[in-house]
Amino acid sequence: MALDTYSYTDPLCVGLVQTQYFHHDGTLPLESGQQLGPLTLAYETYGTLNAARDNAILILHALSGDAHVAGFHTPDDRKPGWWDVMVGPGKAFDTTRYFVLCANIIGGCMGSTGPKCVNPATGEPYAMAFPIITIGDMVNAQRLLMDALDIPRWYAVTGGSMGGMQALQWATAYPERVAHCIPIATTHRLSAMSIGFNAVGRAAIMSDPHWQEGHYYGGELPTNGLAVARMVAHITYLSEASMHQKFGRQLRHAEDYAWNFDPEFSVETYLHYQGDEFVKRFDANSYLYITKAMDYFDLGAVAGTLTNAMAVAQARFLVMSYTSDWLFPTAQARELVRALRFNGLDVSFVEIESPSGHDAFLLEHEEMTKLIRGFLG
Amino acid sequence: MALDTYSYTDPLCVGLVQTQYFHHDGTLPLESGQQLGPLTLAYETYGTLNAARDNAILILHALSGDAHVAGFHTPDDRKPGWWDVMVGPGKAFDTTRYFVLCANIIGGCMGSTGPKCVNPATGEPYAMAFPIITIGDMVNAQRLLMDALDIPRWYAVTGGSMGGMQALQWATAYPERVAHCIPIATTHRLSAMSIGFNAVGRAAIMSDPHWQEGHYYGGELPTNGLAVARMVAHITYLSEASMHQKFGRQLRHAEDYAWNFDPEFSVETYLHYQGDEFVKRFDANSYLYITKAMDYFDLGAVAGTLTNAMAVAQARFLVMSYTSDWLFPTAQARELVRALRFNGLDVSFVEIESPSGHDAFLLEHEEMTKLIRGFLG
Repeated sequence: MALDTYSYTDPLCVGLVQTQYFHHDGTLPLESGQQLGPLTLAYETYGTLNAARDNAILILHALSGDAHVAGFHTPDDRKPGWWDVMVGPGKAFDTTRYFVLCANIIGGCMGSTGPKCVNPATGEPYAMAFPIITIGDMVNAQRLLMDALDIPRWYAVTGGSMGGMQALQWATAYPERVAHCIPIATTHRLSAMSIGFNAVGRAAIMSDPHWQEGHYYGGELPTNGLAVARMVAHITYLSEASMHQKFGRQLRHAEDYAWNFDPEFSVETYLHYQGDEFVKRFDANSYLYITKAMDYFDLGAVAGTLTNAMAVAQARFLVMSYTSDWLFPTAQARELVRALRFNGLDVSFVEIESPSGHDAFLLEHEEMTKLIRGFLG
Repeated sequence: MALDTYSYTDPLCVGLVQTQYFHHDGTLPLESGQQLGPLTLAYETYGTLNAARDNAILILHALSGDAHVAGFHTPDDRKPGWWDVMVGPGKAFDTTRYFVLCANIIGGCMGSTGPKCVNPATGEPYAMAFPIITIGDMVNAQRLLMDALDIPRWYAVTGGSMGGMQALQWATAYPERVAHCIPIATTHRLSAMSIGFNAVGRAAIMSDPHWQEGHYYGGELPTNGLAVARMVAHITYLSEASMHQKFGRQLRHAEDYAWNFDPEFSVETYLHYQGDEFVKRFDANSYLYITKAMDYFDLGAVAGTLTNAMAVAQARFLVMSYTSDWLFPTAQARELVRALRFNGLDVSFVEIESPSGHDAFLLEHEEMTKLIRGFLG
C-alpha cells in the first residue's frame, strides 16, 4: 500500500473517524492506594458491535501512542492512525467483522486524564500531584469504559510494547472478559536495561530547568529534556542492523565532515528531528508517569511467580516477538509462553524474522496479518 | 587479587607512580586543517626502557580514561590505575620485561591540552574555540612524545574501545613504528547506533543551560547534561545479561515501590551515581570533542576501503572482542580481521566469552593475560 496515495476513501481504510471521550464521574481506586477521579478516557471505534455484543476487539497502544489507531480525522490529514496497516476492511483486525476499539490511557496526554489536566481539588493542572499510576490502573480505567459500552467480553485484546503489557494485564485481571489475547513485542516485566533507559529519560526531563518540579504549564516547557529522552528511547526502538541500513555513516548535507558540532550524520539529524517532533505533541510529565508505570509492571509479583499469575487466565494466546528487538527480546516472550503453557493454556508463539528492532510491531504487518487472521479464526 | 588488600607494596604492583607531562612548544597540524600548539601531553611510564630501546609498549585509553593505568599515586589512594590488572610485574604487560607507557589524548581533560586549557591566543580557556580533533590527531600528538623519548619503534601498541581505535591508527599511520598491535573491543569505524548514542550525549550537554555555548569555566558547570550523557553511555558499556545479574529489578532501599519519582530501582540509583561521579572528574566540553573524534574515525575512508587502508600495516595483530559487547560487536572485529588477513598480515583473533558487555575489556583480565603473554612471546 503506497501511503502517499492512500486516503480516507481507500476501500481498505476505515474512512474518517473521530476520537470519542468517555467520562467517569466517580473515582477510580489506584494500586498506590490513592484515588483518581473524575476521569476522562479517549477512545476510537471502527466497525460495528454485533447484536450478540461478542465481536469487540480492544487495541492498546504503546508509550507515545493514542486512541487514533486507524483512518483519518480529516480529509486533509497527511497520515492515517498509528496502526492503520492492521485495522480496516480485510486487514488483520477486520472492521467488516469486528468492532475494533482503541482505548487511550490515564496518565497520558492524548485526551485522557493525566498530569496536564486540571486537578479538581485545586483548579490548577495536576502536574506532580497526579498520582502514580500503573498498567493495572490503566486497565481498570478501560474496564469502566467497557462496562459503559456494555461489552461483556472482548473477543480479543492486543497491543505492542506497553500495549502488550496492558493486554497481559487484561487477561489476568479480568480473565473472564478476554477470549483471545495477542501480546506483541512485550514482556511481563522490564529488564534492568529497560528500566535503565527509562531512568535516563526521566533524568533528562527532570534536570531540564524548565521542568520546574512539573509546574511548567503556561510557561516554558522542558522541551530539551523531553527531546533527549525521546532521542535515547528512539535508538532502543530500532536495531543496529536497521540503523546501519537506514543511515550507515551517511552525512546529511555534505560530502565531507563539517568540523563543528552541528548534527551532521544522518542518524544524528534523524534523532534530533525525532526529538523535536515529539516535544510538539507530548507532555513531559506524562512521559515520567508512563515510563514509571512500565517500570512498575511486574505481572508475577503479587502471585509470587509469573506462572502463578497466569494460572487465572482463560484466553487463547498468540504471542509475537521479533528477532532484532533488543528492548523486549524474544527470551522474555519465551518466559511468558512457558508460564502460559505450564498452566495448560492454548498458546501460539511466533518469533518473526525482522531487522527492524522493537519497531517491527508497527512495520511487519504482512506476516502479522496472516498470523492474526489465522489465530482469530 | 583482592583489591581491598592490594596496595602499592604488593609484589604484583608497579608501586607509587607519577603522571609526567610532555610539552611541545611548536604547533601540531590537525586533520581539520587547523593547528594546535603549544601542547601538553600527560603520560605515565612503568618498567625500564632497555639499551636497545625496543621494549616499549604503548597503552591507549578509552573515552573517559587517563594516563594513570597502573600503580598508585599516593599510599592513601583507594584504587590503582584503570588497567592495573594488566600492567605490572608478571602481568599481561610485564613491567619486568617491558617499558610500558600510557599516553593521554589531546582534547581531553586529564592533564593534556584540551578545551578547558588556556588558549594562548586569548588568555582565556579555549572552550569551543578548541579545534575539532581526530583519532589521527591524538596519535600524531603521541608521536611527538615518542620522538622526544627517542623510542624508534613500539614493541606493541594496545588499547580497548577508543584506545583500540588509536592502536589501529598507529599501526596504519606509522606502520614502521609498531611491531605488535592489540586492538581490543574496538572498531575501524562507529556504527550508526554508536554515533546515535554519542549524539544523545552531546545533545544532553549542549541543551544544559549551564553549557553556555561552552563558556562555563569559572561559572556553574553543565553537570546535569554531562551526567545524563554518562548515564546513557554507561548502559551501552554493560549488557542486558550483566545488568540483569547485577541489578535485576531490585529496589535499592525498600521492599516495596516508593510511589514517587525518586530513583528507586538499583539500576536507577547506580546510573545516577555513575553520572554524579563522572561530572566531578570530567569536563563536558572534552566529552563533546572526544565523542566527535570517535564519530569521525573511519580508518578506510581515505584509502577507499578498510582493506586498502590496512595494506600499509606491518605489525603482527591480536584482535580481541567479547561475546556480549553490543557497542563494538564481534561482527566489527571480524571485518577488521578480514581486512588484515586479506593483506597477508599475521593476525590472531579471539572472541572472548563474557557476560560483561563492552566493559569486558576492563574485567576479563585472566583470559586476556594468557592471550597477550602468548602473543607477545
